[in-house]
Amino acid sequence: MNTFINDQIESFKERNQNRGRLLVSCPDKPGIVSAISKFLFSHSANIIESSQYSTDPEGGIFFIRIEFECPNLKEKATELEQQFAEIAQQFEMEWKLTHVYQIKKVAIFVSKELHCLLELLWEWQSGDLMADIALVISNHEEARDVVEGLNIPFYYIPANKDIREQVEEEQLKLLKEYEIDVIVLARYMQILTPKFVAANPNKIINIHHSFLPAFIGARPYERAYGRGVKLIGATSHYVTNDLDEGPIIEQDISRVDHRDDVDRLKKIGRAVERSVLARAVKWHLEDRIIVHQNKTIVF
Amino acid sequence: MNTFINDQIESFKERNQNRGRLLVSCPDKPGIVSAISKFLFSHSANIIESSQYSTDPEGGIFFIRIEFECPNLKEKATELEQQFAEIAQQFEMEWKLTHVYQIKKVAIFVSKELHCLLELLWEWQSGDLMADIALVISNHEEARDVVEGLNIPFYYIPANKDIREQVEEEQLKLLKEYEIDVIVLARYMQILTPKFVAANPNKIINIHHSFLPAFIGARPYERAYGRGVKLIGATSHYVTNDLDEGPIIEQDISRVDHRDDVDRLKKIGRAVERSVLARAVKWHLEDRIIVHQNKTIVF
Amino acid sequence: MNTFINDQIESFKERNQNRGRLLVSCPDKPGIVSAISKFLFSHSANIIESSQYSTDPEGGIFFIRIEFECPNLKEKATELEQQFAEIAQQFEMEWKLTHVYQIKKVAIFVSKELHCLLELLWEWQSGDLMADIALVISNHEEARDVVEGLNIPFYYIPANKDIREQVEEEQLKLLKEYEIDVIVLARYMQILTPKFVAANPNKIINIHHSFLPAFIGARPYERAYGRGVKLIGATSHYVTNDLDEGPIIEQDISRVDHRDDVDRLKKIGRAVERSVLARAVKWHLEDRIIVHQNKTIVF
Amino acid sequence: MNTFINDQIESFKERNQNRGRLLVSCPDKPGIVSAISKFLFSHSANIIESSQYSTDPEGGIFFIRIEFECPNLKEKATELEQQFAEIAQQFEMEWKLTHVYQIKKVAIFVSKELHCLLELLWEWQSGDLMADIALVISNHEEARDVVEGLNIPFYYIPANKDIREQVEEEQLKLLKEYEIDVIVLARYMQILTPKFVAANPNKIINIHHSFLPAFIGARPYERAYGRGVKLIGATSHYVTNDLDEGPIIEQDISRVDHRDDVDRLKKIGRAVERSVLARAVKWHLEDRIIVHQNKTIVF
Repeated sequence: MNTFINDQIESFKERNQNRGRLLVSCPDKPGIVSAISKFLFSHSANIIESSQYSTDPEGGIFFIRIEFECPNLKEKATELEQQFAEIAQQFEMEWKLTHVYQIKKVAIFVSKELHCLLELLWEWQSGDLMADIALVISNHEEARDVVEGLNIPFYYIPANKDIREQVEEEQLKLLKEYEIDVIVLARYMQILTPKFVAANPNKIINIHHSFLPAFIGARPYERAYGRGVKLIGATSHYVTNDLDEGPIIEQDISRVDHRDDVDRLKKIGRAVERSVLARAVKWHLEDRIIVHQNKTIVF
Repeated sequence: MNTFINDQIESFKERNQNRGRLLVSCPDKPGIVSAISKFLFSHSANIIESSQYSTDPEGGIFFIRIEFECPNLKEKATELEQQFAEIAQQFEMEWKLTHVYQIKKVAIFVSKELHCLLELLWEWQSGDLMADIALVISNHEEARDVVEGLNIPFYYIPANKDIREQVEEEQLKLLKEYEIDVIVLARYMQILTPKFVAANPNKIINIHHSFLPAFIGARPYERAYGRGVKLIGATSHYVTNDLDEGPIIEQDISRVDHRDDVDRLKKIGRAVERSVLARAVKWHLEDRIIVHQNKTIVF
Repeated sequence: MNTFINDQIESFKERNQNRGRLLVSCPDKPGIVSAISKFLFSHSANIIESSQYSTDPEGGIFFIRIEFECPNLKEKATELEQQFAEIAQQFEMEWKLTHVYQIKKVAIFVSKELHCLLELLWEWQSGDLMADIALVISNHEEARDVVEGLNIPFYYIPANKDIREQVEEEQLKLLKEYEIDVIVLARYMQILTPKFVAANPNKIINIHHSFLPAFIGARPYERAYGRGVKLIGATSHYVTNDLDEGPIIEQDISRVDHRDDVDRLKKIGRAVERSVLARAVKWHLEDRIIVHQNKTIVF
Repeated sequence: MNTFINDQIESFKERNQNRGRLLVSCPDKPGIVSAISKFLFSHSANIIESSQYSTDPEGGIFFIRIEFECPNLKEKATELEQQFAEIAQQFEMEWKLTHVYQIKKVAIFVSKELHCLLELLWEWQSGDLMADIALVISNHEEARDVVEGLNIPFYYIPANKDIREQVEEEQLKLLKEYEIDVIVLARYMQILTPKFVAANPNKIINIHHSFLPAFIGARPYERAYGRGVKLIGATSHYVTNDLDEGPIIEQDISRVDHRDDVDRLKKIGRAVERSVLARAVKWHLEDRIIVHQNKTIVF
């Protein structure tokens, strides 16, 4: 099966060797699109897809995501970066230029419940999640077989709140060793320290098993049952130091009724969690998300 | 147009003169269905629709809703009630026997925003909401024209928290005069006193413009915008003395994104509020709802 | 109520006197965005929103919709058009430059079922549908009261297939007299002649009461019931001379089950029809739709 | 992993050793529920869940599904069947009495695309699909590894239309050998002969990758793309000899737009297919489905 995945990845890189993405946010004023598109045109780049949003036409913030084809992108990468830096300075831009063939390195953290992990692996095997799943870290052994069966390194690092710092040190070391770009908490049931979070700003994606901000914190399905809600939800968000308060990437819900006890809510909820997390991770991998003031713009 | 509504109502009453509904809740044990269905059969009643639910097969609570056709229902009403009372006593039932031809008398309370009121009136005019809309009470004048245009009495009763008791006294008098069965708060922006609520247990249906329990209280759309949610919702519930904490009848959501400012959220939200409230009211009118411990069973 | 609508319309025009929209489609090649944005910048226009799509980066068709603010737009309109025509010629563009303050003139055609008409009028009264509803034409009298109650001219033109041409002549005369931009068939149950359709290309929006291409033609709810589908739908599309085969603008569905007979399907379906048609009309009014080869791009 | 599944299955059987289900359809008349519930009560059975539906209160067909707990169900099985047969005769019932601890034996047929198979296996491993997946049959080798990895027998039987009868003979032999109760076509891309279908009435569940009756037959995503639909769907149905015309069990859709090419439609569609088929299979396994005149009643 891994040969199939590798083939898909190689074919994807090949197809996308000249494909770049430009993400920009800056104070809005006339001329931004003109300057960017002139720059791209001057390098013979063809704009494939472009999305733009302004918080307010007068005095607001301007956001744009452009996907483009540029002949010999690899060779011209440094030149492009340097020249764009000048435009960026002129418009006070925060910006990022990414190369699609450089697929992102992902670490997945998981505990005992495997449904979110399995969904990500499944999408990955189907070629629908273009990433290098570099390793899986877990405080339990449940996931080992399936992960190693796909030739992905699996690290069992027992964790509890008393040894949190030591555990995270070990984790951070692994993240560095594998040059990880993004960390996905696929139902990882440990709280991260501010130090760990600060080391990975807008790089940790979590799935919370409720429709935030309802049922922040522990045991959301039990509380949803207690409240008698008619819909249950899931929320994927970037992790910040405020528990379940980080920028929301995606949410979805499923209908439930009075017959559904807590166990049934959990089963129904799993399907929602799976698809919400998978969409959020996919958008992150495709550089579709810009974080601005604890909110996300998803292009 | 009112002739059309009256015709529809009369035709509905005619068609349903022998149609009854039995709602029961009691401690679960074997023999309940057998006793009820034997009783109905002994009166030549044919069960048209029946739904049942138990919280727990062992030692739980049993709920049932039965809709039946019984020849000469009107004439036999008292007899049926008396005889069923014996079964009810034996099984410690809470129960209710309703006659479908006795359509319910509804009072609608509204403030300035008319979309929920208009939806109810629209469904009513289409014959989709079988009720006697007996009067509309508002603390503003905005709704007068449309309400009186349909020959429904409109009462303008200005309200604010300083004169709450006096206002409610006036309202309660009207509710009594019109023999109101159910009160619909169609975006009525005044808090009701415990006295008013206590006088109308499980008879006041509210629409809250958020996906409860998220954004309890005031200005939910503003807070949803601030939090950057990707879905907005609406919740219809029975009113209790805990603000926005009563038994939830129905909820629904609509997808939003970063481009939607507070005004757009409100516009999108209106469509959700309208349909959620209309469904909740319809279920109540059809005796589909049993309230149990701050939750609803909706059959 | 009409004063309120007029106030809203005037305020909208005032707010949008410098707001323009540019819609372009042309063969894809590098430099298009650069040329357009340079042009806008040279006229001090600020791009507020921009969406782009290409069927294929190599040799495909390029589509863009740009909304912009341009100081003194009214005065500069002719100049802008003339100058842009040169760019358009260079890139072989089909294009359209619209002014947001010039709100579109709409004619609504309706028969006996009023729910779609009522939804449009309701959205219009709420200020959610920014249009000049210039007249309503019907082959029945049912809609007269509600339409005239809003001070909208109502024309009763009886129709059947034997007098189709004469009827359409009368209709076309009215459309011309009122300078109509778009015709909405809000459950107008008459088939239009090729002549009528040809006179109004991509200007007639219909609502079909099924999820096309399922149940093309007459009595879709009856046929949906016969087939035992678990979802029913509605489709809004531009009218072409192939019955129910025109470019689809929007579709949606609602869940049904075995208990729903044809009458219930119709009731459930009405809610879907209403919202699908309203969304389609709104997108058309906002110049969000480009038709390409019997499909729509909706930006 | 299989130990875990076996443990779950054993625990399920243990918990449900006294749980039975009764499915009945017959001409509607008063006294049916009374007779059935009296019968159950006389055997000390407690009704846990009951759903009923009549096509028409007068002269229609009556359907009921009852789930009950009956002490010593195993020992009393024959007695129950014999006694109920008398009631059944009296009311001209078609009926079925099933024992929940007798979990159904399932054969899955699959071709090259594995997503539906994987979903079923995933739900099964999670304990959400209570079945004995007895074997997987495929005309390709793609599924072998994952199937055998779960210790499920895998049979590779190459197939094409020239050797259809011989292939089916082999398949039927296996189905008999494994005492299969239900056959799931999880994207099995071969047409079955009338003989095969006739041998398994209402026992073959298929997933069709469109919202039937739209796009019956081959290449539905290509045709959906061609038509420019805004929603794509999937349909699970029992197989009959009319291609894609069997009784529909479940349908669902997903929103798409102009940017989605055929490949993207297929990817989006896979998620819909997976969940629609899984729900249909689950309902079948739970004896929730009654087929009546090419439609399903799903309780």
